[in-house]
Amino acid sequence: MVEPGAYQQTIISTEEAAVIAREVRRLIREGDERSAWEQLRHLHPADMGSIMAALPRTSREAIVAVMSPDAVAWMFRHMNPVQAARVSARLGTGILSLALAQVNPRTALDILRRMPGSRAREVAEAIGQPADDPAVETTPLDTAAGFMVTRFPTVHPDERVESARVNLRRLSREDHNFTHVFVIDDDSQLIGQVAMIDLAMSADDAPITELIMPSMAPVPAETPREECARLQRHYNLTQLPVVEGGRLIGVIPSTFLLSASVAQDTEQILQVANVAGDSPDGPLLGSIRTRLPWLTINLATTFLAAFTVSLFESTLARVVVLAAFLPVVAGQGGIGGTQTLTLIIRAMALGELVGMRARRLLTRELILGLIHGVWLGVLVAVIAALWKQNLGLALVLGVAMLGNMAMAGVTGAGVPLLLRRIGVDPAVASAVVVTTVTDVCGFLLFLGIASAAITLIV
Amino acid sequence: MVEPGAYQQTIISTEEAAVIAREVRRLIREGDERSAWEQLRHLHPADMGSIMAALPRTSREAIVAVMSPDAVAWMFRHMNPVQAARVSARLGTGILSLALAQVNPRTALDILRRMPGSRAREVAEAIGQPADDPAVETTPLDTAAGFMVTRFPTVHPDERVESARVNLRRLSREDHNFTHVFVIDDDSQLIGQVAMIDLAMSADDAPITELIMPSMAPVPAETPREECARLQRHYNLTQLPVVEGGRLIGVIPSTFLLSASVAQDTEQILQVANVAGDSPDGPLLGSIRTRLPWLTINLATTFLAAFTVSLFESTLARVVVLAAFLPVVAGQGGIGGTQTLTLIIRAMALGELVGMRARRLLTRELILGLIHGVWLGVLVAVIAALWKQNLGLALVLGVAMLGNMAMAGVTGAGVPLLLRRIGVDPAVASAVVVTTVTDVCGFLLFLGIASAAITLIV
Repeated sequence: MVEPGAYQQTIISTEEAAVIAREVRRLIREGDERSAWEQLRHLHPADMGSIMAALPRTSREAIVAVMSPDAVAWMFRHMNPVQAARVSARLGTGILSLALAQVNPRTALDILRRMPGSRAREVAEAIGQPADDPAVETTPLDTAAGFMVTRFPTVHPDERVESARVNLRRLSREDHNFTHVFVIDDDSQLIGQVAMIDLAMSADDAPITELIMPSMAPVPAETPREECARLQRHYNLTQLPVVEGGRLIGVIPSTFLLSASVAQDTEQILQVANVAGDSPDGPLLGSIRTRLPWLTINLATTFLAAFTVSLFESTLARVVVLAAFLPVVAGQGGIGGTQTLTLIIRAMALGELVGMRARRLLTRELILGLIHGVWLGVLVAVIAALWKQNLGLALVLGVAMLGNMAMAGVTGAGVPLLLRRIGVDPAVASAVVVTTVTDVCGFLLFLGIASAAITLIV
Repeated sequence: MVEPGAYQQTIISTEEAAVIAREVRRLIREGDERSAWEQLRHLHPADMGSIMAALPRTSREAIVAVMSPDAVAWMFRHMNPVQAARVSARLGTGILSLALAQVNPRTALDILRRMPGSRAREVAEAIGQPADDPAVETTPLDTAAGFMVTRFPTVHPDERVESARVNLRRLSREDHNFTHVFVIDDDSQLIGQVAMIDLAMSADDAPITELIMPSMAPVPAETPREECARLQRHYNLTQLPVVEGGRLIGVIPSTFLLSASVAQDTEQILQVANVAGDSPDGPLLGSIRTRLPWLTINLATTFLAAFTVSLFESTLARVVVLAAFLPVVAGQGGIGGTQTLTLIIRAMALGELVGMRARRLLTRELILGLIHGVWLGVLVAVIAALWKQNLGLALVLGVAMLGNMAMAGVTGAGVPLLLRRIGVDPAVASAVVVTTVTDVCGFLLFLGIASAAITLIV
């Protein structure tokens, strides 16, 4: 068994990490697990963990076999719980239980809560956590309660700086991630906070009342993660106190708040493609469960587009060349609409549209759509005229393009605004609605105008 | 002139902010700017700023006219520089110059550096900043130097805690955002850092050498913002020291690091739709400059799709019903490919794929594409058979769907991996390549198989 070396705070670039990962894989292939572990043991735990998580299962098991549970526990103690849970989900129950039994119970719980339910219960039982511990079972991870820690520095308002210093010394080193000491009365009611920097610069006998400041944004335990991330960004906060009936029950420290914020952004990015919760290296069944329902819903919308085209079969039968241009008008509309909705959804998430009038946003996107439509319409008409030597077709194509780009602008802005107003998350549903509208409208405009002006084209 | 009231740290929800914004607009419409300002003056500066930024230009000017430069300066002092620059860009040069002359020069510079170049120079001259101040002109905002502050707490390694306390007291309240005091020698060489919490709990006469810890991740000034954000997330850091030849020249405090991280995510989200740098409420010309080149490039790719379809004009002329199903096969491929590439790009940005083998990711997505393709192929065949009463068409459609979904999986994973390997940002270029491939492949497969099996369909 190899013990972890001196903990060196070395940081490496992703390129260096990739080189080490390749070397580790090579050594394991050659059956030299000990040398492979030598490559990993001097790394920062965040790098050790992410390289281990990326290894194929058999290589990971080979590495874990030469690590002591101490080494695994040490790694977990120094990773953030979100990353630690990602690594844990990939380790065997045996080694994981031995390791988690060695980290402090609160850290173990933080990791367990982030693992898939059935695995978490299995490991919890193995390390003697009561299997029905309500904290493992029920704390929703997407609320303030799911991110808060329950050990934090406090001080009574009647005391002096010296007492705060004593209280701070009682915290373990794993709890050193605080920017404030919280001022609570005998009943744990949150009265205010003292900045760590103010404590650091004050004399021992300074009364706490001289340093106290109002606590920004105490949030209830059930506050959604999304709102915690917004408060942090909007008000520039480093941590959030969590309260229940005015009593301080937890604190979200800055690194956890950052994790919440990153997780929120990840969810937002993945939701636009409707793959939130999926991962490129998890179990296949999970990916199918996330993606297939969405692909099936989308099939319905493409059939709507197909139905639109089929309305014009007689026109297409007379001028089959029209079929080639179907993807041009619809595709450009889809891109234009997606540009607009991406901007609007992100601005919404950052709170930049608060108080802005919908009419102003819609008008602006309509004007932009018209400007883009004129340019693209002329361009597409010229290309079509040169390619197919058909001026009528060029004219129809140009007009349809102009119309669809204007439509794309209005829909791209209007759909997310409308969805938000009716209480649907715009990040989830906007893209499918907008592309369906630009597809159907593109086909209707192009084939409709072509049918009306068929004598110009034939 | 109205002066700002007592600074109350009140936080409000976005809904409450929207209500206040509506009320402010109504009051200004009725010519009662004073009451409108009364609505704003008790808000947190972040809310005051974001509501002002969202007002139509004339309303904003009416509000600013009743605010004193003091009040504007106060607002800027308490906003983060990124938000402050957003508001500044919307204020007149006169009031802005008066206000910025009152905030400390460093904060003013931070705001100016984030404003559009010509406006920034104009205002810099008005407040007596040398117009050619290299910091205004040349610091790239997307590097560590663009986010760092140059006043930060330090202490000499030979000193005691008491000296650190004295040094901290010299900082102004605007500089209180630090989690560490940096230990530097006489030559400003960075030796290590002392956590604020350790200073807060230590006795006056404790030597600094007992509290010193290695400084995590000192970064060079030219480190890209993207890398700063990655270091923060991956290593769970609250601030980054910035060095030049080992000398400490700046510090990125936690709130700026968070701004960098949010700005990075915003850029990533907007880049997928190729609208990075655009905003839904900026000048029209800026939006056109961002979006139109991209729409024009995309036009070329849709013509590639059009050309593919036109290869099969004779087939389409014989079986015009095929035209209706063109969007179905291509559209599903596009969605499937986008799902995969969104997951891969986000996982790349979070560093989760470091050390993972491309072959493993590709195989996984190929298998998923085949599974999804079987389900969607059967579904689409059944619908087509029922709708068009054509079993041959149903068979062709089903097979083409299966093929295109498999293609979508491989392309969705392969394109970002390939782009990264050749040094192109996958977030910028992946989407257009993948949808072009799924469009062209979808048409080729569907019309190609239909042409080969035309006797089954007619």
